[in-house]
Amino acid sequence: MANSNDISKHERIGLLHPGAMGATVGAAARHDVDQVLWASEGRSSATRERAAAAGLEDVGSLENLIERCDLLLSVCPPSAAVELARRVASNDFRGTYVDANAISPRTMRTIAALFAANTATVVDGGLIGPPAVRAGTTALHLSGEGARRVAACFETGPLEACCIDGPIGAASAVKMAFAAYTKGSTALLASIYALARAEGVTEPLLAEWERRLPDLTGRLNGSVPASAIKAWRFAGEMHEIADTFEAAGLPDGFHRAAAEVYERLAGFKDAQEPPTLDAVADRLCRDAD
Amino acid sequence: MANSNDISKHERIGLLHPGAMGATVGAAARHDVDQVLWASEGRSSATRERAAAAGLEDVGSLENLIERCDLLLSVCPPSAAVELARRVASNDFRGTYVDANAISPRTMRTIAALFAANTATVVDGGLIGPPAVRAGTTALHLSGEGARRVAACFETGPLEACCIDGPIGAASAVKMAFAAYTKGSTALLASIYALARAEGVTEPLLAEWERRLPDLTGRLNGSVPASAIKAWRFAGEMHEIADTFEAAGLPDGFHRAAAEVYERLAGFKDAQEPPTLDAVADRLCRDAD
Repeated sequence: MANSNDISKHERIGLLHPGAMGATVGAAARHDVDQVLWASEGRSSATRERAAAAGLEDVGSLENLIERCDLLLSVCPPSAAVELARRVASNDFRGTYVDANAISPRTMRTIAALFAANTATVVDGGLIGPPAVRAGTTALHLSGEGARRVAACFETGPLEACCIDGPIGAASAVKMAFAAYTKGSTALLASIYALARAEGVTEPLLAEWERRLPDLTGRLNGSVPASAIKAWRFAGEMHEIADTFEAAGLPDGFHRAAAEVYERLAGFKDAQEPPTLDAVADRLCRDAD
Repeated sequence: MANSNDISKHERIGLLHPGAMGATVGAAARHDVDQVLWASEGRSSATRERAAAAGLEDVGSLENLIERCDLLLSVCPPSAAVELARRVASNDFRGTYVDANAISPRTMRTIAALFAANTATVVDGGLIGPPAVRAGTTALHLSGEGARRVAACFETGPLEACCIDGPIGAASAVKMAFAAYTKGSTALLASIYALARAEGVTEPLLAEWERRLPDLTGRLNGSVPASAIKAWRFAGEMHEIADTFEAAGLPDGFHRAAAEVYERLAGFKDAQEPPTLDAVADRLCRDAD
């Protein structure tokens, strides 16, 4: 945790955007920051409701938000992160820009470069855990100059800020490496179940797992259906992870395959409840010969 | 377990070859079979020692083995399985041929087809677990006609025979699906550690794992170094698994990447003791940009 004794606190920060995770980040910051603002322009009614429930104040447009805040926090899908940063940078933002998205270190450095001409401060962030409703569940890793002042926004709320001793890219690397296992191994597990079903051997496989790897059965029945509903937004993150492996000289195939798995499951987006394992398996197997 | 009341037992079987796993399979069969033979021609002195210790009788050549046995059991590296079966089939073997190797269902069917002209019985086998020294650790899944008579060779020894209700290919599918998770996720874990090291974030990553996924730290410190020593013989199995996924219409990238990981670690074959995690990571990262 940052020691903020010598850190001046922000009195007003802006949040882009109050999605399921972002809204809880904004609500967490309100414990230490007087005002957390957001911009409703172009956002859905669900987002408006979440923002209001989180106690965030709507200033309408992105331009208003940029004008009124000297710290902006970006929490959005990985595929939208660069474009959002570009819009902020092109509006001559000169404060602190925190990108807390699931992007590769290289994408993070691309975002930092967008602000080079503005003399803005860019801070790298990586969120690990579920939406930050309860204390002790969710961490915001931060790296780069200015990380400690960002951490001071989360001293007393339920989101735990962790300053990493590293440059821009380090916090993103932690996020990539952490999600590489959780989301990567869930995609692997879903594929293996689909394989066993296609080959007619789910019964002996599940018996072997039950006996030798008893935790796996729980993950299969829990994580796989739960992930299927969220799969539509995981594919982009898997490609960011694959890019991170590739840039480090490591095989990228694990997460290209995981991206393919989540793309095939994207149709469960509007499902009322998690699908059965067999329904997941049916979506995964295609073009079998 | 097979009920062998109405199954005539084999009195003499042949084992190809008494490697680390194969020797224990042969020793296990000796509880129910009078003689377990093998052929030392072209095999190493280490194999001879293992065979002698397991109580197997050497008949010299493959031709002698084929002539004297009406059941042959193949336990060899996946890349050698088809060629070995071809040699046996071309010697007009007409008994029961059990392929217990880590091969795809399709490779298994290729092997079965080699014996079609001989009117031999082919049984599909898949070994799960460590070398079968202690009871309750290792299973031999069997499928295809003749599976029950093969299972009768392992009624009282420490290798548990499990007859699967399925055709040639089913037992191999169980093996592929089981190893897809164990060896696949170990390769993933090794890659993630290498990534974190390349990015300078092992400390925050391991802290997150310790806190959220405490079992993972044990697997990282146990399975990764242990697998590095055996990696030289895992790459072929990973490609068989990838082929199995591909044939079922599933993404094959997880195990192509795992094959690449194990290929890069093949140099640890002659290591006296398991390498450190950092030594594994150094071998894995290459051509980083």
